[in-house]
Amino acid sequence: MQQVDSIIHARWIIPVEPAGVVLEDHSLVIHDGRIEAIRPTATLSDQFQASIEHDLQGHALIPGFVNTHTHAAMNLMRGMADDLPLKQWLEQHIWPTEAQWVSESFVHDGTQLAIAEMLRSGTTCFNDMYFFPDVTSRVAINSGIRAMIGLIVIDFPTIWAQDADEYIGKALDLYDQIKGEAMIGSCFAPHAPYTVSDQPLSRIRMLAHELNLPIHMHVHETTEEVATAEKETGHRPLQRLDELGLLSPDFLAVHMTQLSDADIDLVAERGVRVIHCPESNLKLASGLCPVDKLLRKGVTVALGTDGVASNDDLDMMGEMSSAALLAKVTANNASALPAHAALRMATLSGAEALGLGEITGSLETGKAADITAIDLDRLETSPLYHPVSQIVYSASRNQVTNVWVAGRQLLKNRQLTSLDEEELIARASEWRDKIRS
Amino acid sequence: MQQVDSIIHARWIIPVEPAGVVLEDHSLVIHDGRIEAIRPTATLSDQFQASIEHDLQGHALIPGFVNTHTHAAMNLMRGMADDLPLKQWLEQHIWPTEAQWVSESFVHDGTQLAIAEMLRSGTTCFNDMYFFPDVTSRVAINSGIRAMIGLIVIDFPTIWAQDADEYIGKALDLYDQIKGEAMIGSCFAPHAPYTVSDQPLSRIRMLAHELNLPIHMHVHETTEEVATAEKETGHRPLQRLDELGLLSPDFLAVHMTQLSDADIDLVAERGVRVIHCPESNLKLASGLCPVDKLLRKGVTVALGTDGVASNDDLDMMGEMSSAALLAKVTANNASALPAHAALRMATLSGAEALGLGEITGSLETGKAADITAIDLDRLETSPLYHPVSQIVYSASRNQVTNVWVAGRQLLKNRQLTSLDEEELIARASEWRDKIRS
Repeated sequence: MQQVDSIIHARWIIPVEPAGVVLEDHSLVIHDGRIEAIRPTATLSDQFQASIEHDLQGHALIPGFVNTHTHAAMNLMRGMADDLPLKQWLEQHIWPTEAQWVSESFVHDGTQLAIAEMLRSGTTCFNDMYFFPDVTSRVAINSGIRAMIGLIVIDFPTIWAQDADEYIGKALDLYDQIKGEAMIGSCFAPHAPYTVSDQPLSRIRMLAHELNLPIHMHVHETTEEVATAEKETGHRPLQRLDELGLLSPDFLAVHMTQLSDADIDLVAERGVRVIHCPESNLKLASGLCPVDKLLRKGVTVALGTDGVASNDDLDMMGEMSSAALLAKVTANNASALPAHAALRMATLSGAEALGLGEITGSLETGKAADITAIDLDRLETSPLYHPVSQIVYSASRNQVTNVWVAGRQLLKNRQLTSLDEEELIARASEWRDKIRS
Repeated sequence: MQQVDSIIHARWIIPVEPAGVVLEDHSLVIHDGRIEAIRPTATLSDQFQASIEHDLQGHALIPGFVNTHTHAAMNLMRGMADDLPLKQWLEQHIWPTEAQWVSESFVHDGTQLAIAEMLRSGTTCFNDMYFFPDVTSRVAINSGIRAMIGLIVIDFPTIWAQDADEYIGKALDLYDQIKGEAMIGSCFAPHAPYTVSDQPLSRIRMLAHELNLPIHMHVHETTEEVATAEKETGHRPLQRLDELGLLSPDFLAVHMTQLSDADIDLVAERGVRVIHCPESNLKLASGLCPVDKLLRKGVTVALGTDGVASNDDLDMMGEMSSAALLAKVTANNASALPAHAALRMATLSGAEALGLGEITGSLETGKAADITAIDLDRLETSPLYHPVSQIVYSASRNQVTNVWVAGRQLLKNRQLTSLDEEELIARASEWRDKIRS
């Protein structure tokens, strides 16, 4: 009889790996933050004795969602400016507001709000890109969520740094500071091809290689981005990045709505990971990422919400549904991105893209206990023929009831355990009052 | 001092008409099922005395959603068959299941489940198309929701009728039976151009004109539908319908994903109402309805969820968000279908399309008290700059707390008052067990 930390009994366990499997009436055993075993509930009682048992009738357990692209602190700008194209939205609303308001306390409060929203919708790991990444990492550590912190680099001055050299210097300092953290990783985050020039990009490539860090960048987000680059340099941004030696399996290309067949071949050949943000791409009218084509070429496609300022939520359940629906009409094929593949995109493919495929993204023995429980015994998911279909196409984020990260329960019957929901709402209102005054 | 039935105090009231207006700290007065007044809360106390007062701090009141296209009874097939194109999905899954299982009790239980889901997500009126419309109307009446019952007509035999003549005969019988019902209207519902031939369509046109009923039909849903018609007849389905004299403001054309510029001109000229079902069109890879182009030509575009078998929910809040996002990428313009216009599409435009524009769809004095309250004081809608933006882009259906139809409260703190949620879930499971056995 083995003594363990906790056991979750569930109606269904969907491990994501092996693909397509749905385990019925199984239990998941957690010890020391890891998944110790997954067994039929009926066979469990003589093998494990747990300090805590959770009896989740009518629930499915899935791996926690991996949100591979967000700007967490921007939660304080939710719905501030809508229904505008990317350039106008950035230049007339987002950047001026950021210039006036972004500070350590803005990033602290915005990131807490974002993490609270993510945990309440089943996300257990996120990949961020924003100013004051040192604050982001501290807030993430205190909340208990798993995070990849983007070490942001831009050519022009912001409150975080004055020029590319200073951004890179701060990136290296922060890398050193957080490299021992169990729940936190980092990656270089040069903002976009049109905001970072060749020299810093080359330096980032060398440093990323040396430190074994991924590079996370907005790429081919809009037609304008690609057309302007072609006009000014004669090259598409992806070509330029390739010439600079950036394209590799450690390169995370976010958005990628503007892809020729040659671009897709290049991406597949270099093993670039694509991060798909369907709702942001729709809202900013950026375009449609050819997800089905990329998957057919063997490209890893992961899922991100982008920041709430262009989404306007951090809801990976909604994003997964949008991705599945949109892939079909984009490919003109209703079989494109079926439910199980959409769930994989939102979990294991995300972990793989971030270099965390051995640690999280699926429910397998030995992996971290990053787990999301979804209550399917609701009117909105009745009747239930196939749990994965219901999770992708019918369930909403409010059906997420319990969430564990590395075995620690961070959401308990929809209550956050490491953050104070009422306080976060009050603090968000205070920021709103300041910003719009 | 006027004695009234009830008063709702709310943080915001969004009447939809006048367009773009958001009233702060107002109250809505209900008497005899109608909206008696909308006034600033501060000025109210010396004018009205109410039997019931609802104090909805942090809530917005909007007109109840009008779901202009669904097949309610199909709720019993939610998620039964996914990730398949329309033809294969219909011919190999939906139609065989219907042939085996559809009955009066199937329609009764499926429609109750659908109405429960609709009320819980803020829908106060729906337009249905299915077999046993007599049962649908009875269930709707008992639930208290407002409904338009589709008088279905198809050429081929089903459990409801053997041939077009019998369908039309039953349609006329049902029309007579329900024409005195306060909360129920009816419309002819010939299924689609490819399932109803010229002779019954001509008869429907005459009868609809005589009885002053709208006609509700799936039109130009897929490329295949249009291509086959062109090949077989030399005409696009819309041309044929026009030659038969069907196209008019009383004609509700559902889906309309395949529209040439000439089709759009024809539709605009005839005043046809377009019913947009974005999520169903995505899921079946049918195509993208050119919503922005239609609106610019002055066409009324309303919103529907379609049946859950192709959606897989009856969530008008999600549908409204999908419509707003999708319109932008379809038009290549992030300003297409802004938040207020999306809300109008989901409410007043729906009422207008169904010929109920004088009765429901906006919060105006004298109209029916068909009202949905949404709690925006949640972490997921914090901070709040613009309530309509939050409702369209951030809020989820679980934030709908209270719903009134004709002044009768049918959802109270998320509890249904006229239907038994637990019983409906249990009954749905029983059907699932039978159907998949």
